[in-house]
Amino acid sequence: MTAPWVTYRPELKVLDCTIRDGGLINDHMFEDGFVKAVYDTCVEAGVDYMEVGYKGSRRLFAPDKFGAWKYCREDDIRRIVGENNTNLKLTAMADAEKTDYHEDILPADHSVLDVIRVATYVHQIPTAVDMIKDAHDKGYEVTVNLMAVSVVKEIELDQALEVLAATPASTIVVVDSYGALYTEQIELLVKKYKSFTNGTGKEVGIHAHNNQQLAFANTIEAIIHGANRVDATMAGLGRGAGNCPMELLLGFLRNPKFHLRPIYRLLQEQMPALQSMYEWGALPPYIITGQLNQHPRAAISFLSGPNKDACLDFYEKCMREEA
Amino acid sequence: MTAPWVTYRPELKVLDCTIRDGGLINDHMFEDGFVKAVYDTCVEAGVDYMEVGYKGSRRLFAPDKFGAWKYCREDDIRRIVGENNTNLKLTAMADAEKTDYHEDILPADHSVLDVIRVATYVHQIPTAVDMIKDAHDKGYEVTVNLMAVSVVKEIELDQALEVLAATPASTIVVVDSYGALYTEQIELLVKKYKSFTNGTGKEVGIHAHNNQQLAFANTIEAIIHGANRVDATMAGLGRGAGNCPMELLLGFLRNPKFHLRPIYRLLQEQMPALQSMYEWGALPPYIITGQLNQHPRAAISFLSGPNKDACLDFYEKCMREEA
Repeated sequence: MTAPWVTYRPELKVLDCTIRDGGLINDHMFEDGFVKAVYDTCVEAGVDYMEVGYKGSRRLFAPDKFGAWKYCREDDIRRIVGENNTNLKLTAMADAEKTDYHEDILPADHSVLDVIRVATYVHQIPTAVDMIKDAHDKGYEVTVNLMAVSVVKEIELDQALEVLAATPASTIVVVDSYGALYTEQIELLVKKYKSFTNGTGKEVGIHAHNNQQLAFANTIEAIIHGANRVDATMAGLGRGAGNCPMELLLGFLRNPKFHLRPIYRLLQEQMPALQSMYEWGALPPYIITGQLNQHPRAAISFLSGPNKDACLDFYEKCMREEA
Repeated sequence: MTAPWVTYRPELKVLDCTIRDGGLINDHMFEDGFVKAVYDTCVEAGVDYMEVGYKGSRRLFAPDKFGAWKYCREDDIRRIVGENNTNLKLTAMADAEKTDYHEDILPADHSVLDVIRVATYVHQIPTAVDMIKDAHDKGYEVTVNLMAVSVVKEIELDQALEVLAATPASTIVVVDSYGALYTEQIELLVKKYKSFTNGTGKEVGIHAHNNQQLAFANTIEAIIHGANRVDATMAGLGRGAGNCPMELLLGFLRNPKFHLRPIYRLLQEQMPALQSMYEWGALPPYIITGQLNQHPRAAISFLSGPNKDACLDFYEKCMREEA
């Protein structure tokens, strides 16, 4: 095709993780009205999946310190979505070693959730494999996010992909946790993931962070090279620099099933209040941790302090600590 | 090369257009201290060119309505840079039909400017060609920015490039005035421009806008496909959504002649004051004009009004006007 961006790939599916990833900003203390607004927006906009939060362990995460979307108990989800008689599929993320998955993930026919997304670091793969099997046996579609791939050695990544390719996970997601990857690296990773999923029927996904203002660009790059499962959030809401903005992604995708208007309505009606409470986006400290291929925690801590505009001080601190 | 981003291309040169493009936000009314800070930063950071403003016609643009950097008179520039005894080359932009170039552009040996950057729409090419000749005859390096290429028909673009390739301009710049282009389109354009400059010794440049958060990504894409002249601005300062941020660009480029620390110092010391006065970046109305491949003027006007957060209203207005 001479101008592939004029048309679209029907099999490409979009996942909204506004509440799940955005919840890392505020310990998942979203008001029901906002969660419902995101849900309604996803339904109207033609988004394929909505991730409502984590299946966090109540032993690890004290319930008086976090909002409902840290745990995604069945009653809480149903309070928002009822029986979810829509085309929107609902997902929750289960972090390896942070989920009491045997108890807290119900059989699929008792849950309004459709998909469990297992998130794992490379050193947790055996746990992740067991979680994938558990959720699959319970009747869910299961996908897996292999986090922080920008700091995983090639030989370990190959091994992890070989193991994950043998699981019943339907999708393996390229996750740029630190917002450190350039588009050339995304291309190589997507091609590698596809080489491992080739012939298995599995899809490759992309979950990008926006530290270097590359979340949308890297998402496009992943799509070009065959990723068919794409994560985004409303207004790019998410921890630190945030995620690929849904309004940009749906503006790029040409599938007429997607609609931009509901997204801009949500941005108009819901986002100013959130933006007055929380700050996210490619602020200089997040740029710096992205450039250094580091977890954003140091930037998050710095930006919560008294000298948040002192990006040179933060840069110099990072340089000292690198030495 | 298996990982080209680890190394660098020595012939790649960076141009800072903070004062020139940023001046479109405030009618070029920057204080001398800010202009000097940007100049000092460019020198220390190893930036190759700094564009100090426009050579605007005082007949068209009344001098009581604009700051000094709309005109870039010799005395004003020298007030900041003295004789500019540095490695930094200085440029000014001359807009076709908006510059009294015969009178206002001095012979190069009477000016501290090194380069004249002619900016032209496709319908102004004959004027631009005369301006290029005039500046070249006066002893300058001359480059040309062919603006708003995202709305130029292929057949006219080919003709324009054929004409420009025959001028003494040293560089032809791909200019995404509306922030509408995706990386795939940037690739095609850079390849096309290179096909016309092939064998002429001319370079291809890139000037990106950030409406869709793609300015940095598109700049990288242009570099990958051979663009060796790259525009950026401090903190992405620029009209509307702004430009490719210098702090991202220099973080990507691996040439040890470039230094990030002075950039972060400028961001810390100078940008909070500007950010409290002006707003730029990929705000939803700029996203919308970018997605629609339109000049940002409607978004600029909307954002200066009383309902600047009402991006749905702006979206619906654009949809109505498109009909």
